[in-house]
Amino acid sequence: MNTVYFDHNSTTALKPQVLQAMLPWLSQTAGNATSRHVYGRNVRDAVETARKQIAECVGVQASQVVFTSGGTEANNFAIKGIAANLAPTQLLVSAIEHPCVSRPAQSLAWHGWKVQSIGVDDQCVLDLADAAQKLSTRTGLVSVMLANNETGAIQPIAELAKLAKAQDALLHTDAVQAFGKLPVDFGALGVNAMTVSSHKIGGPVGVGALILDKRVDIAPLLHGGGQERGLRSGTENVAAIVGFANACELAAASLKTRSETQAKLREQLETGLQRLNAVIFGQQAQRLPNTSFFAIPNIEGETLVTALDKAGYAVASGSACSSDSTEPSHVLLAMGVDADVARGAVRVSLGEHNTEAEIQGFLQALQQEVKRLKGLSAVAA
Amino acid sequence: MNTVYFDHNSTTALKPQVLQAMLPWLSQTAGNATSRHVYGRNVRDAVETARKQIAECVGVQASQVVFTSGGTEANNFAIKGIAANLAPTQLLVSAIEHPCVSRPAQSLAWHGWKVQSIGVDDQCVLDLADAAQKLSTRTGLVSVMLANNETGAIQPIAELAKLAKAQDALLHTDAVQAFGKLPVDFGALGVNAMTVSSHKIGGPVGVGALILDKRVDIAPLLHGGGQERGLRSGTENVAAIVGFANACELAAASLKTRSETQAKLREQLETGLQRLNAVIFGQQAQRLPNTSFFAIPNIEGETLVTALDKAGYAVASGSACSSDSTEPSHVLLAMGVDADVARGAVRVSLGEHNTEAEIQGFLQALQQEVKRLKGLSAVAA
Repeated sequence: MNTVYFDHNSTTALKPQVLQAMLPWLSQTAGNATSRHVYGRNVRDAVETARKQIAECVGVQASQVVFTSGGTEANNFAIKGIAANLAPTQLLVSAIEHPCVSRPAQSLAWHGWKVQSIGVDDQCVLDLADAAQKLSTRTGLVSVMLANNETGAIQPIAELAKLAKAQDALLHTDAVQAFGKLPVDFGALGVNAMTVSSHKIGGPVGVGALILDKRVDIAPLLHGGGQERGLRSGTENVAAIVGFANACELAAASLKTRSETQAKLREQLETGLQRLNAVIFGQQAQRLPNTSFFAIPNIEGETLVTALDKAGYAVASGSACSSDSTEPSHVLLAMGVDADVARGAVRVSLGEHNTEAEIQGFLQALQQEVKRLKGLSAVAA
Repeated sequence: MNTVYFDHNSTTALKPQVLQAMLPWLSQTAGNATSRHVYGRNVRDAVETARKQIAECVGVQASQVVFTSGGTEANNFAIKGIAANLAPTQLLVSAIEHPCVSRPAQSLAWHGWKVQSIGVDDQCVLDLADAAQKLSTRTGLVSVMLANNETGAIQPIAELAKLAKAQDALLHTDAVQAFGKLPVDFGALGVNAMTVSSHKIGGPVGVGALILDKRVDIAPLLHGGGQERGLRSGTENVAAIVGFANACELAAASLKTRSETQAKLREQLETGLQRLNAVIFGQQAQRLPNTSFFAIPNIEGETLVTALDKAGYAVASGSACSSDSTEPSHVLLAMGVDADVARGAVRVSLGEHNTEAEIQGFLQALQQEVKRLKGLSAVAA
């Protein structure tokens, strides 16, 4: 396909090396990890080796890693599973969470939890004073993402962890967007639970993990054969788990140079965007180096995404995972961005193979489309 | 590996043709089905084509297929998701369900449901009189598997559906073991929900589906981005979904000849087993043609599985998915089998490539191991 892919925060291609690591587990009699014969033992060994690799990437012990079918399941498991073993009190989530955190949280309102939202500033960074104030009410669980998927803004999780700990509240972080793009150390963050996912870092779709503090008492979401020490039943997806571990190691190895390269490309991009009078959301925040979220005044984001797609550039409007919706981004609204401006939002998220020439081509295409679309609206007006 | 694989009910190898169908989705920039650009559209088209293929295999419309991460998730989703939208009354499950049905059911006892078990006869077939009697108490949901994973016994689901419908109870069936081994028609069964899985039929691990009657009101288990019409959030696992659909079509095409071949092989096996004085469980029932569940008197199943593994034959003791447990099979206990006999249980489940020579070799190895183990126990006594 000739279209340049700039939507890596939504999903990024499986790396060829990762596929090679997976193929043996897709090409032979696989065996079920719970079986006692040689096929079962081989699968079990592969799963446990992968568990250790992933544990090392986030600085925990292997026994703290629970495999799931992905980030959405891990977030649902964290929120509902931890809440299930606590007396219902207050549940705090930030105003900029992905729906796979905010919606499970909302679902707990039916079970007696009082769900409250922690605000962010105009740069998409968590308001710690608001968090501290809300934590003065008895709180069982807090969930705040490590980096926002739309703006890329990095959240002050270690500071939040101190506040939460002082109030005996457990803290979960959705690290799906941060993992592989920033160094992520579970202990240094001070959280009790953390979600990571495979397909955002060059691993396969269909696998993720919840990393758990040993003190956390969590109820399973999926009951059955008792896999994952009873915490997540279901036949282990060995090929995907092996691929996930491989992708983690590759992402860790390339992290530094990739970040530097992407930061430069983004600077090139945003310099060009500013010449087009774009508003760049969260630009003053510490951000993931690959992410730029912006709007061109008076042009709808959806319209621009469609036009850019035709011009050969795949970008996202708002958050990819809810792009069936035409509501303006809840993240931008939480930042206090005017709804009309928010409707213009377009996200470019870079992968490791994007180039200066692609950015240059994108900026030219964008300029042409903006000119064309403004011409159309002038005619319509 | 030289070990002969006789554990296909636990999991069966991914078919090479299925892997070929999956590879394009594992080898290119994949795209997220919810994205609006060309990559997203391609993924969405592939998912929707797969949905239609699977729907046709079970005689439903595409909109009735909800993809999940596998059979365990689909069963949890069915039980918890249907119950969530009903007033708690009685929930009936058979005594021979897989733990990924019985444990979600048990978990509903906390939510006010009265969970009752429907018995089976000594051939592992559901006791319809017991079902009818229990259905005279107001019942919201019934879940009974289509074929048992251990004995292979086929259950009278269409008859049960009539009883359930007469009492306004919804009926779910776990068809994971039956699907691909028997013709499975959703409408003919008369159920309201049905679970199918990919890795039991030569598709990849990590994908399954819940088939739903349009009248069923079900709550999602995984909340988030709203995929699968809001019923199952999480990025669509396109490679796995495409592989699942491909495996469904291949299984349907080979069903008749495969069944005939396997029935002959099993007859050969069971003739040999009877010469060794084996007890064959559920032998008088209508069974899946590939499954034989038996015990050699006075020999522990676990011991035999280990010995056979060393001799080059991979078989299961009890149910593979709970084989970390040393409790006798709950299925055999429900059939009234003595616990001591049940502890001897070994399951052979055939795949499409098993041969007469392998059965012959297995019977010889079994005879030798039985002789050796009986010798050992004579010495120990």
